Amino acid sequence: MRQENKEEMKARARNIALKIAYDGTAYHGFQRQSPPVVAVANVLEKRLSVIFGDTIELAAAGRTDAGVHAYGQVVNFFTDGRIPVENIVRAANSLLPDDIVVKAAAEAPRDFSTRHSARSKTYLYRIHQDSTPDPMKVRYAWHVREPLDTRAMREALREIEGTHDFSSFRAAGGKPMSPIRTMYEAELKEEGEDITIRIHGSGFLYHMVRNLVGTLANVGKGRLTVEDFRQILAAKDRQKASPTAPAQGLYLLEVCYDIPLFC
Amino acid sequence: MRQENKEEMKARARNIALKIAYDGTAYHGFQRQSPPVVAVANVLEKRLSVIFGDTIELAAAGRTDAGVHAYGQVVNFFTDGRIPVENIVRAANSLLPDDIVVKAAAEAPRDFSTRHSARSKTYLYRIHQDSTPDPMKVRYAWHVREPLDTRAMREALREIEGTHDFSSFRAAGGKPMSPIRTMYEAELKEEGEDITIRIHGSGFLYHMVRNLVGTLANVGKGRLTVEDFRQILAAKDRQKASPTAPAQGLYLLEVCYDIPLFC
Repeated sequence: MRQENKEEMKARARNIALKIAYDGTAYHGFQRQSPPVVAVANVLEKRLSVIFGDTIELAAAGRTDAGVHAYGQVVNFFTDGRIPVENIVRAANSLLPDDIVVKAAAEAPRDFSTRHSARSKTYLYRIHQDSTPDPMKVRYAWHVREPLDTRAMREALREIEGTHDFSSFRAAGGKPMSPIRTMYEAELKEEGEDITIRIHGSGFLYHMVRNLVGTLANVGKGRLTVEDFRQILAAKDRQKASPTAPAQGLYLLEVCYDIPLFC
Repeated sequence: MRQENKEEMKARARNIALKIAYDGTAYHGFQRQSPPVVAVANVLEKRLSVIFGDTIELAAAGRTDAGVHAYGQVVNFFTDGRIPVENIVRAANSLLPDDIVVKAAAEAPRDFSTRHSARSKTYLYRIHQDSTPDPMKVRYAWHVREPLDTRAMREALREIEGTHDFSSFRAAGGKPMSPIRTMYEAELKEEGEDITIRIHGSGFLYHMVRNLVGTLANVGKGRLTVEDFRQILAAKDRQKASPTAPAQGLYLLEVCYDIPLFC
């Protein structure tokens, strides 16, 4: 197949947006990798190319890491393929493996970019707190042995709502972009041994949710107070925060845009 | 290692009972298989032998099939191993793979047999009803595309409570034992797209829960009425019931005994 450049791809007739769910366990993150490393994007591009009859190169709202899951990743790509939009979900899912599912498809305006048009994102983080693990949750939650004080965690979590400099929770190797983000809502729900943290924000720094959760867990264990958490946030210094929580508890839940699309 | 016979094993000092949870996806059922086929029992016996320092041959309350899961399988075995009972859970889990977890351990009376002393069992069956699958549930629930009338399913489910001849829901190849069983409680819970059927009974015939659920699903889809379900139960004829529901939705939740043990 002849290599196309980005400009030629964008000259194509349609801009298709898809909402994707995946179990990230078997993949080296979302973002396309060079073989033999396999990312979710590699599998999607290969199967979508069959359906649309041309080379698919997709852009995604969030570049999830290895082991991270998604209920609502949003991707878009330009194509001349003629399959009617209402047939895309079924056609794609008939070709995709069990751990990647197209949940919805839409024709997007030509200037829509899943990456650049995103207005807000919501992440979930799941903790399973029990003295022994649950084999059905090993791939889908962070197993924490010690009891957690969820009241203290909830109080600390409230501190991140609003606009803050999140440098303390940014990965060391992150790109040099502004560390200011706005969190619209941050909540913690408890159901038996399952703790779910949901954070809806304007955007997130690299590893930000996992770094926040790692520090929150230490509040839950009583190793940090809510006041310590407040000071860590205010310090704007990654060295002050706790270790990153593991990938398998994290889910990209939803991405919202100015236009009504899957949200 | 010298082969021991059953009598020699039973002459050992301790009768240990364990409550086991496992993700059955990777195993050829619970019951010990000849290599290279691997069952949950093969893995457990091998790792427990390391901890107890003698050959372990375990008996189980329920012989779950390939792909079936457990939260509360109960096994017992005789041993001269000296590890204190309170250290068994941690020692076993440090050696076991992620998909098999020892949840609890107890010293049982010498005449206790997990298989023959069982007084009742509870099974769960999980259905995920949605137009597209959830990749995080593929291994853990039966994905049903069509909408399900859960009110009708609940009504049909009530029919199985009490003592009945369950021949209509017994696997064709089942052993020639009495098909009479008593169901103490059968309930259906709905939470969003997730339907959970819980059945507590005196005992279950081979494939009974999966055959019941396969037929209930056809009630939910409107292909059978509640009256049809009633007649299928009364017919005592496997030919009348619907196809067996898939293994991955089934869980052995709990086994109860006359003595207080994990229940």
